[in-house]
Amino acid sequence: MTPLVVQTELLDDDCRAWLADRCRVESCPPENAERFNELLHDAAGLVIRTYTRVDADLLVRAPRLRVVGRAGVGLDNVDLHACRERDVTVVHTPAANTVAVVEYVWGLILDELRPRPDLVDPVAISAWKALRTASMAVSQASDLTLGLLGFGRVGQRMARIAQAFDMRVVYSDLLDIDPARRHGAEPVDIAALFSQSDIVSLHIDGRPSNRNFVDATLLSRCRDGVLLVNASRGFVLDAAALASMLRRHPRSRAVIDVHEPEPFDEDYPLLGLANVRLLPHLGAATHTAHRNMSWVVRDIWRVLNDEPPEYPAAIID
Amino acid sequence: MTPLVVQTELLDDDCRAWLADRCRVESCPPENAERFNELLHDAAGLVIRTYTRVDADLLVRAPRLRVVGRAGVGLDNVDLHACRERDVTVVHTPAANTVAVVEYVWGLILDELRPRPDLVDPVAISAWKALRTASMAVSQASDLTLGLLGFGRVGQRMARIAQAFDMRVVYSDLLDIDPARRHGAEPVDIAALFSQSDIVSLHIDGRPSNRNFVDATLLSRCRDGVLLVNASRGFVLDAAALASMLRRHPRSRAVIDVHEPEPFDEDYPLLGLANVRLLPHLGAATHTAHRNMSWVVRDIWRVLNDEPPEYPAAIID
Repeated sequence: MTPLVVQTELLDDDCRAWLADRCRVESCPPENAERFNELLHDAAGLVIRTYTRVDADLLVRAPRLRVVGRAGVGLDNVDLHACRERDVTVVHTPAANTVAVVEYVWGLILDELRPRPDLVDPVAISAWKALRTASMAVSQASDLTLGLLGFGRVGQRMARIAQAFDMRVVYSDLLDIDPARRHGAEPVDIAALFSQSDIVSLHIDGRPSNRNFVDATLLSRCRDGVLLVNASRGFVLDAAALASMLRRHPRSRAVIDVHEPEPFDEDYPLLGLANVRLLPHLGAATHTAHRNMSWVVRDIWRVLNDEPPEYPAAIID
Repeated sequence: MTPLVVQTELLDDDCRAWLADRCRVESCPPENAERFNELLHDAAGLVIRTYTRVDADLLVRAPRLRVVGRAGVGLDNVDLHACRERDVTVVHTPAANTVAVVEYVWGLILDELRPRPDLVDPVAISAWKALRTASMAVSQASDLTLGLLGFGRVGQRMARIAQAFDMRVVYSDLLDIDPARRHGAEPVDIAALFSQSDIVSLHIDGRPSNRNFVDATLLSRCRDGVLLVNASRGFVLDAAALASMLRRHPRSRAVIDVHEPEPFDEDYPLLGLANVRLLPHLGAATHTAHRNMSWVVRDIWRVLNDEPPEYPAAIID
C-alpha cells in the first residue's frame, strides 16, 4: 500500500512533486483539526516546518507514524524524546540554510562597519564633501577580531569568509574541531572570546540547555564598542542583560535577527535602544535555502523505504 | 639644507609628523595663491590628494621640485608626461585602499541580494509573516556568477572573497594573471564576461583610454536582471548608455559609487531611475585607507634622499 505523508506547511513545488511520485501526499494544516486528525490517524510520515508542534499529544493521534521530517534546521518544535519513545524517526536538513545565514550575517556586519548612504538628488560640493566625511568608516573588517561562539556548519563558514577578509578569528565550541575545518580560526575559551573580539557572532544551536547561554556575566566581558550579532536562536541570549549592557556602553552595538518570543511584543527589553538593530528572523530567507529544506522529503522517503536517513535528528539536551 | 615639502591637503597626523622629522613641511592649499606660489618656488616635494591639480602650469612655478606624492591610488589629477619632462618623480599608494574598496563593494552586493529591513516597533504576527515573505531573497551569492572587469589588486581581492562565498568568478584583464593570484577565477573575453555574469563589478583603472570603456555595446550583452556595480572611476562607464539599458531592463540594477563629474548635477543620466542606487564615492572612505595613503610620505622621503621609491607612478595612456 502506498504510504500517506501529511504535509502541514508550505514546501517547494518540485520537492512536493518528487515525494508525490512515491507516496500519497495530503496537505493539511493542524488548525484544520477534523481533517488533520483523520489524516494523522493513517499517516506514515509527517512533513513540517516552523509552526507545527510535534509532541506526545500529537503522536498519540498518529498510531502509524514512522517518520517526522522537519524542513529546516532547528528542532525546537519537535519533542525528540516523545518521538523516540514511539519509534518515530525524526529527520531534518541541518545543512540547508548554512549559506543563507552566513551571507546574511556578512551583510549585517558590513552594514555596521561601512556607511552606505544613498543619494537621490544632486547635491552641492559642500554637502557632497560633508556627506563623505560623515560616512568615513572607523574600522575595516581586516583590522578586527571576529569571535564565533559556536563553530558548527555556520560558524565554520563564517570563519572561511572572515579569513578571506583577513580578519583575526577566534572561536569557542564544545567540540574539538579538526584544524582542517578551522579556516585559520583559533580556539579560545568563552571568556577570552568575549574579551578579545571586536565582533561577536552567535552560532550556537537551540538545545534547551543553551537558554540564556549569553548572560550578564559573559556580556560584561565584552569590549566597549563591541558589535554583537545574533542570527541563531533568540533564547540563547538574555535580552534583558544585553539591554542593560548596551545602556552602559553606548558605543557598543547589537544586531538581533532572532527573538524570544517571535514576533517580540512591547515588553521586549531591546526596544527603544539607539544602539540596537532588530530584524524579523531572515537568516534563512532565501529561495535556495527554502528549497534545500524542502528536500527533507528525500529522508522521509528513505525511512519509509527502510533505508537509513542521511540526517536523523540527534537528541541533545 | 633641509628640503621643503609643501602639503596641499589633509594628511594623517602621524604621517605628517614622520615627514616633519626629516624635512621642513609647510601646509598650504593652492587656493591660497600668493603663499602657495612662494612655497612652491622653493619646494623639493609636493604632497597632494584628490583636489590639487599638478600640470605643466604648476610645474613651471616649481623649479626645484623633485617629487610629487599623491596620497591615494588614482593619478587623474597629475600630468605624468609634464612631470617626466621636468624630471619630477611621481609616487602614489596603489595598495592603500584595496581592502577598503573591496569591503565596501561586498556591502553593496549583499545589499542587493539580501533585504534587511529594520523593525523599530513590535508588529502583529500577520505583519511579521508578511514582512518575512516580502524579504525573501531570490538568489544567494553562492548561486551566482561574478564578473570582474579588471583584475588588479582590487579585482583579485574581490575574487578571493567571492571564492570563499562559493561563487563562480570570471574576469577579464589586459594582463596575463599568474594562476596563483586568480583565487579560482577564470579568465574570459570581455564579451563573455558581460554575457555570463549575474553581477558585473568594474575594477579597471583610470587611464585616459578607459573613458567610456563600458559602452552601449558591452552593456547590451548583459543578462536581463544583471547587477552592475561601479566603484572604480565614473568616466569608465557611459552613464547615458547605462541609463538607456536600465530603462529597457527594469529587472536589471546598477549600484554606482563613482561619477563623472563629482558631485553629479541635475543632468546626470542616472538620476530618477528606480533601478539605480547612487552613492557619494565612498570606496576608500575608511580611516585605515586614509592612513595608508598618507604614508606616501615614505616614498617622498626616499626620492629626496636619492633612494628608489617603492611606488613610482607608471605612465599608461
